Amino acid sequence: MNRIQQIEPPDRSAAAAAKAHWDSIAKPLGAFGALEEMIQKIAAIQGSADVDISHRTAVIFCADHGITEEGVTQCGSEVTAICANAIAAGTSNVNAVADAFHAEVLAVDIGMKTDAGHANILRRKTASGTKNFTKAPAMTAEQMTAAVSAGMDIVRDLKASGTRIIVSGEMGIGNTTPAAAMASVLLHLPPEAVTGRGSGLTDAGLKRKIEVIRRGIGLHQPSVDRPLHLLQTVGGLEIAGMTGLFLGGAVYHVPVVIDGVISAAAAAAAYRLNPLCAEYMLASHCSGEPAASGLLQMMQLKPVIDAGLRLGEGTGGLLLLPLLDGALALYRHSHSFADEHMERYRKLS
Amino acid sequence: MNRIQQIEPPDRSAAAAAKAHWDSIAKPLGAFGALEEMIQKIAAIQGSADVDISHRTAVIFCADHGITEEGVTQCGSEVTAICANAIAAGTSNVNAVADAFHAEVLAVDIGMKTDAGHANILRRKTASGTKNFTKAPAMTAEQMTAAVSAGMDIVRDLKASGTRIIVSGEMGIGNTTPAAAMASVLLHLPPEAVTGRGSGLTDAGLKRKIEVIRRGIGLHQPSVDRPLHLLQTVGGLEIAGMTGLFLGGAVYHVPVVIDGVISAAAAAAAYRLNPLCAEYMLASHCSGEPAASGLLQMMQLKPVIDAGLRLGEGTGGLLLLPLLDGALALYRHSHSFADEHMERYRKLS
Repeated sequence: MNRIQQIEPPDRSAAAAAKAHWDSIAKPLGAFGALEEMIQKIAAIQGSADVDISHRTAVIFCADHGITEEGVTQCGSEVTAICANAIAAGTSNVNAVADAFHAEVLAVDIGMKTDAGHANILRRKTASGTKNFTKAPAMTAEQMTAAVSAGMDIVRDLKASGTRIIVSGEMGIGNTTPAAAMASVLLHLPPEAVTGRGSGLTDAGLKRKIEVIRRGIGLHQPSVDRPLHLLQTVGGLEIAGMTGLFLGGAVYHVPVVIDGVISAAAAAAAYRLNPLCAEYMLASHCSGEPAASGLLQMMQLKPVIDAGLRLGEGTGGLLLLPLLDGALALYRHSHSFADEHMERYRKLS
Repeated sequence: MNRIQQIEPPDRSAAAAAKAHWDSIAKPLGAFGALEEMIQKIAAIQGSADVDISHRTAVIFCADHGITEEGVTQCGSEVTAICANAIAAGTSNVNAVADAFHAEVLAVDIGMKTDAGHANILRRKTASGTKNFTKAPAMTAEQMTAAVSAGMDIVRDLKASGTRIIVSGEMGIGNTTPAAAMASVLLHLPPEAVTGRGSGLTDAGLKRKIEVIRRGIGLHQPSVDRPLHLLQTVGGLEIAGMTGLFLGGAVYHVPVVIDGVISAAAAAAAYRLNPLCAEYMLASHCSGEPAASGLLQMMQLKPVIDAGLRLGEGTGGLLLLPLLDGALALYRHSHSFADEHMERYRKLS
């Protein structure tokens, strides 16, 4: 975990070189908006204006949640295992979207209750699901550390095997509850302001979920100043793994894309551990879950897709890739006119 | 022009079939948000749940504006011709982005002052630029009709040669001025509320632009109830061509993607001619120009990209294509689990 202290700022001279390159293209300055800024950010992370996102991997952390015994979801943990197997087999939703954008998908068992059988699952199980956080800390400090470290290690290993950009994703029935609990603490907001219906709770279910979060926070008294304790007491194992992924992005200089609200809560924990982490993250879409926009704003990250996505599995994060591809096509195309009229178009207008 | 009266509603049963298909996929209902709705909309337009957007064409209408003599822009009309030639040669910004998403690009001279020389330009010139609308109507009624008809004909011809989705685009130095004038009338808002800096006007330039729009509207008294007269008096030839494109989409059942504020003004004129047209349009991004969001809202269209894009040439509209590709990959993938747990995940959650 001492890697967290070693995080350094990204290479701002590479970002400046990327900006200079954008400004040399025959178009009004800054006209490709936030996408220009994202390419500059990736340049800083990769340390080169010659941005490369050709090899991309979606990492899907799968885990279960003891809190489901409080009736905060309508599905059981068996769905986590079914989906994890499908992801590993290449037949789940995320695989279809990843295939469309030439991304690889890696399913990680970071804490599933049931073992998923597929051989392609990366086994990094740190516990067989969390405990019910209204009764005990979700995990031990050792389990939390193991999950965060596993996330960091995955970035290191993926980078070594060629991955240049990572999309974060998760599968874990019940995980909007720990994400909302974390958001409540991270944003200093009452549970009712950050808790949504997840995949579709009823009014009564939503009320129960809010109450469960209130009890968990009351029991453990987590604080925004102790993000690892927050993760441990009311978080989830896949959230801890994703926090490790975001920390690893900053440690190993690989851009990591935030997906929905679970991913944003994990990213915010990394940010609270070291604010430099935000300089290694890219926001993709703004989830419909109420905590998502607040968490992104806290990190001063702006999503570019607003489509009410709430599928999870990293699917929303993957949608950022083709937008970056489009921006890079323009960036690399680099047609500059040697013409005084065009020079005016580019510079003044 | 009597084609406008023949527009019929899209095939709502095809949309319902597409929705039923989405709902059969192993994911929470509606979890792919606005992208699910867009696929349903295309199904309705194409009359089949077997949605096909494989053959896509960006149509870039190029024209010049007499209003530039009032100092509302810092570039001259020669830039329109330079860019039109570059688009036709495949070397402009829009070509780079279109190539990334396997789209074709068609440059149309619908009213340029200078003839662009490239052989690939479709010649549909209806006038050598508009007149200065502070002194005379921008175009004659005949020129307006010719430009709108040319736009409709282009949809008919593209459909015949296989195009299944069209992205609207434009190149015309000075064209945010007529677009803002049209928006002012269409939205019942004063010019200062809908006028932006285009590609980058100074404060003094912006003030002059607002004043020019006020004078044009005062002179011609266009009304929201006479959209063709509005186009004719304070519009532009590329805007009229794009209005024809949106009308043509509705006539020939081809989805047409709205790009930025110029495109939105053209779409809104088509909508005011026949509100059914909106059922054949797709919003892509929300331009930074102040009128864009109001025009889309008027048509009850919601963009899914929010990245402050203001490059024009159809580049922002093209970015919608890969998001639709991602949604279609999921839609076609259609993995449904024969499992009672997953059934609950799909239905209730």
